[in-house]
Order: sequence, then structure tokens, then C-alpha cells
Amino acid sequence: MLQRSGREVHFLLRSDYEQVKRHGLKIVSVNGNFRLDTVNAYSSPEMMPPCDVVLVALKTTHNNILPKVLSHLVKKNGVVIIMQNGLGVEEEVAGIVGADRVMGGLCFICSIKKGPGIIQHLDYGHVTLGEYSVTKTGAGFTARLKAIARDFEDAGVTINQTDNLGLARWKKLVWNVPYNGLSVVLSATTKELVDNPESRVLVVQLMEEITRGAASCGYKIEKEIVQNMLSATETMIPYRPSMKIDFDEKRPMEVKSIYGKPLETARKNGMNMPSVAMLYQELQFLDGRNLGESIV
Amino acid sequence: MLQRSGREVHFLLRSDYEQVKRHGLKIVSVNGNFRLDTVNAYSSPEMMPPCDVVLVALKTTHNNILPKVLSHLVKKNGVVIIMQNGLGVEEEVAGIVGADRVMGGLCFICSIKKGPGIIQHLDYGHVTLGEYSVTKTGAGFTARLKAIARDFEDAGVTINQTDNLGLARWKKLVWNVPYNGLSVVLSATTKELVDNPESRVLVVQLMEEITRGAASCGYKIEKEIVQNMLSATETMIPYRPSMKIDFDEKRPMEVKSIYGKPLETARKNGMNMPSVAMLYQELQFLDGRNLGESIV
Repeated sequence: MLQRSGREVHFLLRSDYEQVKRHGLKIVSVNGNFRLDTVNAYSSPEMMPPCDVVLVALKTTHNNILPKVLSHLVKKNGVVIIMQNGLGVEEEVAGIVGADRVMGGLCFICSIKKGPGIIQHLDYGHVTLGEYSVTKTGAGFTARLKAIARDFEDAGVTINQTDNLGLARWKKLVWNVPYNGLSVVLSATTKELVDNPESRVLVVQLMEEITRGAASCGYKIEKEIVQNMLSATETMIPYRPSMKIDFDEKRPMEVKSIYGKPLETARKNGMNMPSVAMLYQELQFLDGRNLGESIV
Repeated sequence: MLQRSGREVHFLLRSDYEQVKRHGLKIVSVNGNFRLDTVNAYSSPEMMPPCDVVLVALKTTHNNILPKVLSHLVKKNGVVIIMQNGLGVEEEVAGIVGADRVMGGLCFICSIKKGPGIIQHLDYGHVTLGEYSVTKTGAGFTARLKAIARDFEDAGVTINQTDNLGLARWKKLVWNVPYNGLSVVLSATTKELVDNPESRVLVVQLMEEITRGAASCGYKIEKEIVQNMLSATETMIPYRPSMKIDFDEKRPMEVKSIYGKPLETARKNGMNMPSVAMLYQELQFLDGRNLGESIV
């Protein structure tokens, strides 16, 4: 969408590189399909020009490559935007490019890669953007944040600007923690999980634990979020969360960033989240076996 | 084995009645195969003679039929032995036949019904027998208990007599709660659960909660039981626990008697078992969906 609106965009690709280099990208979207016949595609960061804004849309399970990739990509006055799930990645990237060159983007979107060079966008699509900050009150609305938000909005992407990225990340976990993990362990869609009275008990319990975890870290989330997120899922199309898709495709699941890091962070602040911990444990078992099987 | 040793045995059967009536029972056992060419088979309790000892080997998921069945079967001075998993069934049956006519039997055996009239015995096979008692200290070793134990032993069944059935039931839950439930939720054998470091954490956690639950009800279980049960499972053949077999066969799982009742009992005594509760919740979801699917 950024390229379609006239921005200069460079794509770093892995398995889709050859396909995209030759044939571009195809977007199949609820908002209307479109194609990019020619894109600036790269298979290695060394070949790319330094950029003003680097969007990290990699799965967190491959974040070990970030130190090598990012050092080549971001301009001196540029910024890296972490558009990933979970907690703690901005902090890691701050260690690589400096805290003043990091922002976070939370993607509320149902989309999957349908095939090489083909993105299918099923539902939703807004992004919450915010500056990285080590303080609990957030970094406020900077000129840079506003400028980047405007670029996205000009391209047709709905943006929520947040002055408190840490709070926004914990709020997103209120949705991600129950639905991602339970969809894998119980092999269920979001709709089943919220409609079935037995699993709904677990969804609520996990959501409430996450709000307590957030509170222990200094992020106050209003109680109504639980009911609001339940209602939102009730009306949403039945959906396989990203973790369930990864599991089904025998790819690594983002258990560390969505479960491990929040658990560790809350525990440092004296808060245990026992249901989240149990779900994490179950997911680690399933993840390990799943990947073991895919190697065999 | 009781019939083979010369005892008079009457079998109340459901789906296997026609087959067993005609062709008897076939036992395929690690201890040696044998057949009973003719057995006293019945399809309804009304046709059976009253018995001195009634062995209840029904799944607890069908215990709603017990009031109707038992009133016809047990002699005035007879006794009903509950050879089922979980907690609380003796109490229910005491309400039907009177507390002085109830005993419990805990079966430590790996066996499955291989087909109509065919029992496959894979491993183990000892039974713990004890008198039902409402006191926490148990009912001691009665003459009746000793006599029945002798009948089993004469037939070749190893018997442990217990003077405290309540304690023995909680101890069995220390094994049943982690392995039955996790084998279903994680689709794993006992061996995988104990060997994999991630699931082993859960096994230990669930075992420890059960020992705390037992303590809240006045049953003190020595701490070493956890390590002992882990070691026992490490050397055991990889095994699908009964609940996993029920789940795979799309039969109801014994979630109420193995999870619901212990949770309720501990909670009445002021003890929460959060991991057990979460596993219960997951199992109720899976059980409901599994049975729903089998009807479709």
C-alpha cells in the first residue's frame, strides 16, 4: 500500500525472493485486490540502500538475524519500526540501533501469505504506532510519529497513534495470549473459543491475568477490555490466529515473545500468571515436538 | 481370573453381551493368554442372582445407571467394590446400598478391550483394596477385606490391602491427574510426557498440587511420591492412559471423577489447584467437542 501510494519501498525477502523479483506482489484483499508488477526486491541486506524507515515484519522466532540485518538498513536519522507480536523486541533492537531510533507498530490484521508473492488480507488492518520508551508513561506524540503515521494514512492504512507503546503492547497481549495459545492447544478457531462456555472461562482467566501482569509493570489497563475483546471476537469471522497457522504449517511458534517475555517481565515485578505459565509450558512442548517432527 | 480359579462369577455386559454369551471371553495377557469358553453372561441386572461381591468396573461416565443396577445385584450381607478411577464414587454408592456395604478397588493395570469379548492386558495388574470410610484415618483391615483379598490372590491377582482407602484414592490421583489429562491435551504417551523437559514441568506441578489438595482434605502424602511416580513412568512401556483411549475412540472421558470431584473436594477445604483446574477446563472443552463430533 505504501508503494502503491508513491513511496519508495525496498523489500528484503527470503524464500519468495525469486518469485517477487520477477513477478512482483499480488495482494488479495477484502478492501480490493491489487498488484505491484515491479518491486525493489533484495535477498540480502547488504544490497539494499539505507532507509529512513525500516519496517520489521519478520516473525520473532527469527529475531536472531536482526543485529546483522539492521546495521545495514537504517539511516543515521532513520528509525526501525518493530511490527511484531509480543513483548521486549523494541528493547532488543534499541540495543542494536540505539533507543532513539526505535518505534513499535502493532498490527491488527488477519492476513496470511497465500503463496509465493501472494498476500491474502482477510479482515481488519489497522496499525497502532508509537515511540519506544523505557518510561511507563510513554514517549508522547513526536513529530516523527506524526509524519510516519501520515505516510501510512496517505497510503490508505488506518493508524492509531499511541503515546504509550508499552501499554499498547500489553493491551494487545490481552487478545494474543488467550487466542493464540488456546487455538493451538485446543485446535480451535477464535470463534469456537469464545462461544464455547468451557473455553470462554479460560479466555477470560488468561485475559485477567495479563491485565494483572501489566499492572505489576506499571501499565494500567481498564477492566472493560476483557468484555470488549470477547464481544469483538464474537462478531469477528472465525479465524486461525497466527500461532495456529504457524503450528499447522510446522513453523516455529512465537511462544517466547508472546508468552515467555511477558511472564518473565511480570515475574520480575513480583507477579505470577499461573494460567499463562501453564499455557506457555504446553506450547513449548507442542512447539518442540512439532519442529522435531518437521525435521524427520 | 476369578472364574478360572473356580469362583462363581456372573458378568453383566452391554455391547459385548451376544458375543460373550456365545463364545465366552478371551484374555490376551503379558502373563499368558487364556479363554473362558462359557461364562454366566447377562444383559440386564434383573436376570442376575444376588451376589456376595459386586465388582463395579463401569466407566464413571455411566454411573447414572448405578442406582438401578446395584439394587438388584448385591446380597443383604454382600459388598459393592468400586473398581473405578477418581474420587467420590464410594460416597455415591454408599447412598444407594449403605456405607457398610461399600469398598473400593484401585486398579493399577494397563489393559484395553481389544474387540468384542477380547481383553488385552499389556502391563501391570495389581489392585489396591480397602474399606470405604468417611473418616480420614480409614476403616482399618476388616475380616471381609482380608477374605476378599484372599479370593483375588488365590486367582493370581496381586492385592495390596489398604487401611485408608481415601488416602489411596488421592495417591492414585497423583498419577492419574497429570498423565490422563496431558496425554489428551498434548496428544502424547506417558513416556513422552515424562521424558520431555517441558511437559515434565507440568507433570510435576500437577502432582504437587494434588498432594496439596489431599493434605487439605486430611490425607498426608509423602513428598517422595512425585519422584517415585516419575521414575516408575520412565521405565514403564509408552502407554496411552485410559482417558486418551476414550478420547481417541470418541467416548466420554472421566473428567468429572478424575478432575471435577477432586477440585470440588479440595475447594471445600479451602485449597485451590489452579493447574488442575485449567487442565479440567481444557478437557471439558475437548470432551464436549469430541462427543458433539461423534454424534454428527
